[in-house]
Parts: sequence; C-alpha cells; structure tokens
Amino acid sequence: MRRFVAKNSKYLQFIARSFSSSSLESSSGLFPQVTLQTINPKVLKCEFAVRGAIVTHAMRLQEQLKQNPGSLPFDEIVVCNMGNPQSLGQQPITFFREVLALCGLPSFLDRSEAQKLFSADSIERARQILDQIPGRTTGGYSHTQGIKGLRETIAYGIEERDGFPSNANDIYLTDGASPGVHIMMQLLLRSELDGILCPIPHYPLYSASIALHGGTLVPYCLDEATGWGLEISEIKSQLEAARSKGVTVRALVVINPGNPTGQVLSEENQQQIVELCKKEGIVLLADEVYQENVYVPDKKFQSFKKIARSMGYQEKDIPLVSFQAVSEGYYGECEKRGGYMEVTGFSADIAEQIYKVASINSCNSNITGQILTSLVMSPPKVGDESYEVYSAEKKGILSSLARRALTLEDAFNSLEGVTCNKVEGAMYLFPRIHLPQKAIKAAESEHIAPDAFYAFRLLKETGIAVIPGTGFGQVPGTWHIRCTILLQETKIPAIVKRISDFHKKFMDEFRG
Amino acid sequence: MRRFVAKNSKYLQFIARSFSSSSLESSSGLFPQVTLQTINPKVLKCEFAVRGAIVTHAMRLQEQLKQNPGSLPFDEIVVCNMGNPQSLGQQPITFFREVLALCGLPSFLDRSEAQKLFSADSIERARQILDQIPGRTTGGYSHTQGIKGLRETIAYGIEERDGFPSNANDIYLTDGASPGVHIMMQLLLRSELDGILCPIPHYPLYSASIALHGGTLVPYCLDEATGWGLEISEIKSQLEAARSKGVTVRALVVINPGNPTGQVLSEENQQQIVELCKKEGIVLLADEVYQENVYVPDKKFQSFKKIARSMGYQEKDIPLVSFQAVSEGYYGECEKRGGYMEVTGFSADIAEQIYKVASINSCNSNITGQILTSLVMSPPKVGDESYEVYSAEKKGILSSLARRALTLEDAFNSLEGVTCNKVEGAMYLFPRIHLPQKAIKAAESEHIAPDAFYAFRLLKETGIAVIPGTGFGQVPGTWHIRCTILLQETKIPAIVKRISDFHKKFMDEFRG
Repeated sequence: MRRFVAKNSKYLQFIARSFSSSSLESSSGLFPQVTLQTINPKVLKCEFAVRGAIVTHAMRLQEQLKQNPGSLPFDEIVVCNMGNPQSLGQQPITFFREVLALCGLPSFLDRSEAQKLFSADSIERARQILDQIPGRTTGGYSHTQGIKGLRETIAYGIEERDGFPSNANDIYLTDGASPGVHIMMQLLLRSELDGILCPIPHYPLYSASIALHGGTLVPYCLDEATGWGLEISEIKSQLEAARSKGVTVRALVVINPGNPTGQVLSEENQQQIVELCKKEGIVLLADEVYQENVYVPDKKFQSFKKIARSMGYQEKDIPLVSFQAVSEGYYGECEKRGGYMEVTGFSADIAEQIYKVASINSCNSNITGQILTSLVMSPPKVGDESYEVYSAEKKGILSSLARRALTLEDAFNSLEGVTCNKVEGAMYLFPRIHLPQKAIKAAESEHIAPDAFYAFRLLKETGIAVIPGTGFGQVPGTWHIRCTILLQETKIPAIVKRISDFHKKFMDEFRG
Repeated sequence: MRRFVAKNSKYLQFIARSFSSSSLESSSGLFPQVTLQTINPKVLKCEFAVRGAIVTHAMRLQEQLKQNPGSLPFDEIVVCNMGNPQSLGQQPITFFREVLALCGLPSFLDRSEAQKLFSADSIERARQILDQIPGRTTGGYSHTQGIKGLRETIAYGIEERDGFPSNANDIYLTDGASPGVHIMMQLLLRSELDGILCPIPHYPLYSASIALHGGTLVPYCLDEATGWGLEISEIKSQLEAARSKGVTVRALVVINPGNPTGQVLSEENQQQIVELCKKEGIVLLADEVYQENVYVPDKKFQSFKKIARSMGYQEKDIPLVSFQAVSEGYYGECEKRGGYMEVTGFSADIAEQIYKVASINSCNSNITGQILTSLVMSPPKVGDESYEVYSAEKKGILSSLARRALTLEDAFNSLEGVTCNKVEGAMYLFPRIHLPQKAIKAAESEHIAPDAFYAFRLLKETGIAVIPGTGFGQVPGTWHIRCTILLQETKIPAIVKRISDFHKKFMDEFRG
C-alpha cells in the first residue's frame, strides 16, 4: 500500500498496532457465552497437524525474524511442512496464467496491445472459455456443479486420460479437493457407528473430516517395509474388526499417489481394492490429486475409474468418487482453489442429495479455479503456439522434482537411524526416525510425542519446519516426519547440511 | 472450444452424448450400498430453496429452449430467482478487474504494452498487493485466515467505515459468506438442544446450515405490516419459548439489509438487538453482505460492531461475527467467491478452535477472492487515476438499482391481491400474494405449497423464475415470492407486462 501509506499516516499507525498483538487475549470469566465446555465436542476432538502447533510456531518465529533480525540462530524459516510449490519459488505455467487473466478482461481480447502481450492461443482459449460461460462473464454465479461447458472440457480430458466415458453431469467443480471430501463424509456418516477405512499414515483431512462429521475412522496400516504397500489382507481384517464392534463401514479412502507416503499403487493392487469395495458394498473414495506427480519410470498413474471399467465394472456396479485439485501436479496453483470430484455409481435420488449439500455449502469452485481446472485437464496440444513453452515448463518442473526427491531420499537415508522409502510420486518424503530411548523419555517429560519433540527441536535450532508423523497416524512405536520435496534445488545442499548437522547433534545428545 | 472441435470430431460426439442424459438413472436395487435410508438423516432433512426444485425446473426449460427453440410459450428464461447481477448484464468494476488480472501476471507490470492497456493506478495497486503476498506469487497457499497484508487493508477499511478499531487477526477471508456461517454453526451447535434465533423470513443458508449441523432453528417473525420490522418483544418471547423447551439459544442471526425482505434496520433497533444479545449471553451473527446496497436517502447502513462500540461495549462484552461478501454490493462478483468474517469477542482458546475448523475446511478464500475483498474494502480514492471511472460505474449501478427497485415495487403493488414492502436495501422484492382459496385448494391437490404452485405456474407460462416464500419461511397462511431487482432496466417493462398478464389470468382462473 505504498502510495496509500504516503497519503495516510493513520494507516501506518494502524499497521504498527496490528503487529503488536491479537485483540483476542486469553481470559477466564470474561467471555462466558462461548467456552471450550460449551462448544461442539466434535470440533474439540478433531486435529489437523498440517496447520497445527508446529506451523503456528514457525509463523511466530518468522514474525520474530522480521521484527528482530538476528535474534535467532538462523535467518529464515524453511517451509518444508506443506506442498506449496510456488511459495518455494516454482514458477506458474505461463499459458494457464495468461488465459486466466484474459477471461477476466473480455474487452481486451480484440485490442492490439493485448495481442502483443499474450500468446495467440491464450487469447483464442480465453474466447472459447467465455463462449462456454452463460453471459460471457466471469462474475456470475454458476451452476452448483460448476459451468457446464467447463465440466464438459474436463470430462473430455478424463476420457482422453482413461479411455473410458466420463459425463459432465457427474463432475462437481470444487475449491480444491477438501469440499468434495467433506460433502461425502457429511452424506455417509450418520453417527459414530458409521466408519470410514483410512490408510495409516494419511493426509489428515480425512481423519479431521470424519471427526468433524461424527463418524469413526477405521484405520488400515500401510506396510513401510514394502514401500508403504497396501495389503488387502490388512484392510479385510480391519473391516472385520470394525464390523465386530458394530461399526458399519461406509467407504474406503485410498490416496494414490500417496500422501504423506509417496508410493504409487500397482495395477494389481488397485484391482484388489476395487474388487474388495465391490464385494463388501463400500464406497471407494479415491484421492487422485497427485495424478501428475509420478517420478519413477516403472510406475504410472492410473485412475480407479479406469481400473474398475477395465475390470468390466460399470457405473451401477461400484460407487466411486475421484478427487482432483489444481494445487498439485506440475502447476501447483494452490491458492487458486480449483479442483473437481467425479461422482459415479450413485442412484439419482442420492445424486440429488449430493447436489443439495453442494448447493448449501456453496462448494462450487470460484470461477478462476473452475477455468484453471479445465485448463489443467486440457492443456495446450502439439501444434498450438504455446505448446513448446508449456511443454518445457512442465518437463522442467517434473524432472526437477524427480531429482530433488532422489537427493533428499539419499540425504535422509544417510542419517544415523533414519530410513526413507522411495518417493515414487506426490510431493513428500516420510522418513522414519529411529529415536533413541533417551529422546523418547525427554519427549514424554515434555508431554509431547517423540516425533513432535524432534520436529520442534529441528525448527528451533535450524528454522526448518516439518510435520511430525503423529499428525498423519503411524504404527505405534514408530516415529516419522513429513518433509516436502519442493525445496529450491539450489538451496537443497545447504538445507541438507543443516538437517545433517542438527541430526548428528541430536543423536549425540540422546544416543544414551 | 472452437479450434479444438475443428481438430477433433471425437469431442463433438462426446458433447452430443453429454447432452443426452445424466449417467445417473433412477433405479431401485441397483445401488444397494448407499440409499436414502442409509445416508445421514440431517442431509435428508435440510432444504435450500434458492437452488431447489423451481431452479432445477428452470434450468431444464432453458435446456429445452436451447435444444428445441419454439417449443415453449416464451423464448427465454428470466432468472429472477437469485442475486446474480453480472449474469443479468451488470458490468464489472473496471479497476477491480484490471488489478486482478495484473496480480496473476507479475512479469507484465513493467512492460510498456501493459502500461497502454491498464490504468496506472491499477498497475501500482497490483504491485502493492504483490508486495503484501509472501513470495509475491498468487499461486501459493496463504495463511488459514488469508494473506495478512490483505487482512490489514480490509481491517483498515472497516475502521474507516466504522470509526472504531478493527484487527487483521480477527479477520478470516472466506469464499463468500457461506463458509464463515458454516464454521460458526459447526462451532456452536452440539445437538438439537442448541438453538439459533433466525428471522422469518430469511435467506435459507441459515436454516440449511443449522439443519446440517444438527441444531434447532428458533424462529422470530419479522413484521410485514411495519416494513418487515424486527420487534424485540417477538425475539424475547421466542427466546423464552425455546428455553422453556430445554433449548439453549447460542446465537441470534440478523440480516441487515434484509434478505429476502429488503429492510434496513434503524440505529435504535440495532441497539436493542445488541442489548438483548449482551443481556442474554448469546452470540450475534450479523449478515452484512448487502452493506453497500441501500437505496433510500433516509436510511444508511451501520455495522453492528459500530453500534456495539458506540454503546460503549468493548470486545470482551459481546461475541459478534460480521459477514461480508464480494457477491453483493455494486461489484456483484459472485463467482469470484470472496468475502470475510470479522470475529470479535471470543476468548483465545475459542479463537484457536475457530482457526482449526477454518483450516480443516480449507475455508480461506481463493486468492482472487482475497484480493478482490481487499479492493472492495479499499476502492480508488479521490485523486487516483481510476477514481472518476470507478465512481461513475459505482454510482451508475447503485442509482439504477434504486430505480429498478421502485419500478418493480410499483408493478407488484398494482397487481390484484398483491402487497409489496419498500425495498430499502439488498437485492430483492418479497411481495405478498393474497392467493384465492381456489388456488390454495388446487395447490393442495398437487401436494405443493400454494406459493410454489403460483411460482411454478409463472415459470411454466412466462419463463420467469422466482422463489416461493415457503423457501424462506413465512407467517403461516401468508404466501410470498422472492424476485430480484437486478433485471436489466430496458427489459423491465416487458417483464412487468408478462407478470401482470400472467397474474390477471391466474386470478381470473382461481378468483372463485
């Protein structure tokens, strides 16, 4: 607000005050209307580590560095705690950004200056998209599921990807993947006697959403020893155990590629999962947001819908929801909040209920997110003016991510007592830290989980923020951290050194 | 997708198929896993008329007109059922759109072609906004509450508006107003023994959200005879009645200016409400999304926070949440999904729970919505290059809305058996239709509410879509419709004629 400030010294005073402290001081007795004892206990119960205590502490340290440079043993916070590519320096895909800007300014499309600034195919694509929007405006409310024409483009993209039909009427354009997940939980969970099978470890959106909507999480453990393998026998035994306690299992969550675990499922494994859901009458909720993020040549992403249809199962045979978002992939447009869920295999009356909840939640994505989702599912093609630039940008990002994953894997595996599975896909490493007993005892005396103890130490001593494994669930007695692979390549050697030095010091202190 | 289509005839076949029908056919027995009997009964229970049956039917007719022109007694659907200004031809505010486009394309800011296309202050403002965003990128995740710098701009705008302090830490940037409302309901409602006082009639987001989160709606009726007056005695008696049934009333919802009722509250009335909430220990949820939409010279919008602070009540005295959105006002940028809630008067531990739920819901607005909310709360000022254009656009829109409100009020009041209160603010008329007994009987025999019967008839005969009053709640035995004032001015005479002709015919048929 530079010019604004120059004009208005009140704004400066205002900013100074807003840095001083929150207006919400802790106080007892002052706020009797709403207390922890009188709010919804489901709210109290749920946890969301990826924006939890360690992240709050990191933000506090960042503020401290800004206000008081030199007051900490490091000069910047290294944000390894979330998949936030562009905040770590990744550049956006030019074509996508140009089309988005032009869609908001229809009057520019015919101006000669615009033709000098923008590529010809971004102008053309913006025109096509505006033609798909009723009233050719990006300012109007759209259909609850999102603009029909954009959903058609996306459905076509899914068909091209899978080789099986997709219907625009089955697609809900959502603000990222979360609103779709919440809708499905809201729909399926009646009480704590309804359960959802969830991988352990898993991205905590699922546990939080299940807790918030009052259901029961039925955990199935991924096998770290086999590269976070998903064993059908484990799912079956957990399903039986839940049923024996009177829990009706309504759905199975699979995250592929895995978050935080980074594995890419094999076709055979996916077939087993489909078969199980079919046989047991449970809904398959497929988190496929990392579908573009596969880094190993021997694996490739295949959607669960493709797998199910390849097995001969049709729409009516299996209820299946696939989630996709624009925050991931090579595009990483996190705060654009775009994505879709493709909902298949539900009867018309249930589809009507899903539509109703989506309407009430105003869950449909903002228009920028809607347009971007359509672009992501129909990027420039060979022969388009932007194709070469687009293709080079995409390849550059994905190959760099693959290199970074390898470097960081090696770095973690070289640390004493640390083992790290291969990052086949997604955006994270999830190394296991074999913590010494003395460290575990020290954590206990501070009443925090041992991996949180480790992560807080790492943050306080190096400024590197990671999320403790506890936040994702893990086999009891094992301890992990989640660290993103998105760090800028040029910075990785220095960061690896900081982690190694810290780890050595930590182990020296606690090796016992 | 013109060029795309030319290249790819598969796409044409695809589109043809997607028009044919939904893949979700109604069927019994085929989808045994998820049925109306096995989903969350709260989902079944809630209703949302503004995207309900009549809207679905209108979309169907629109599709029919597209596929089969001339097959209906009208040639277009007139969408009076929602506040969707730009879809009805309202032009966006140029300055806002220019800044939004530029923020997505930082590399353009220094290019000479951009200086020819964009106003100097939009370029400058985009620079200032990018400076406020960590990493200067619109692609990164922001803080759960939204970007701090943008929240500071908004808090400053609130201070300028109210003359009382506002703190960026109290502000949550949300995708429109709905996510904030859902968070507060999620927080406050433990079971059906928790109640929320809601005006009757009211925008059904509130009733739907209360039902979805399992609470009880405690209705208080607005007095149609006194221009939808909000009588404190009525609220008190409903509060007592609820308490006598064992319901703990947690909050009071006030919509000012009113939706669907269009009244603007007097200062005295607002003071009474604040006093009541203070005395009774209930949270005040103030829907203030129409704060820019006041059309009468003798009324002006005043925020509940300003009223409370003017009365000498401080932060600690009263928990108060104000909702604002970019979908309304003179900007009407509905599908940008921007807005904020300002949360004051809660203790730090409760604020932490609100923060957690906001994180889980990923409720923070998309970046376009965040930026736009900051622009709306700090538009161009006198002396800025864009000020004159901005000011003319704003004035043009608001004065036209005032004229349209008057014309439509008069039109409804001239109909037999119809009375319509003054539209002092917001975007709707809510005329009362004194339906003849014969019409009420006919509706009963079709098992629909009499005003829904009227609204369906109107839609089928004229193509004009309005929402029946039943969807908003109304005093038993009274019947209304909600109709937006946003129709294009040039089209209003013809639409009024269609309504008048229909109404006359309807009354002739049912006058009895």
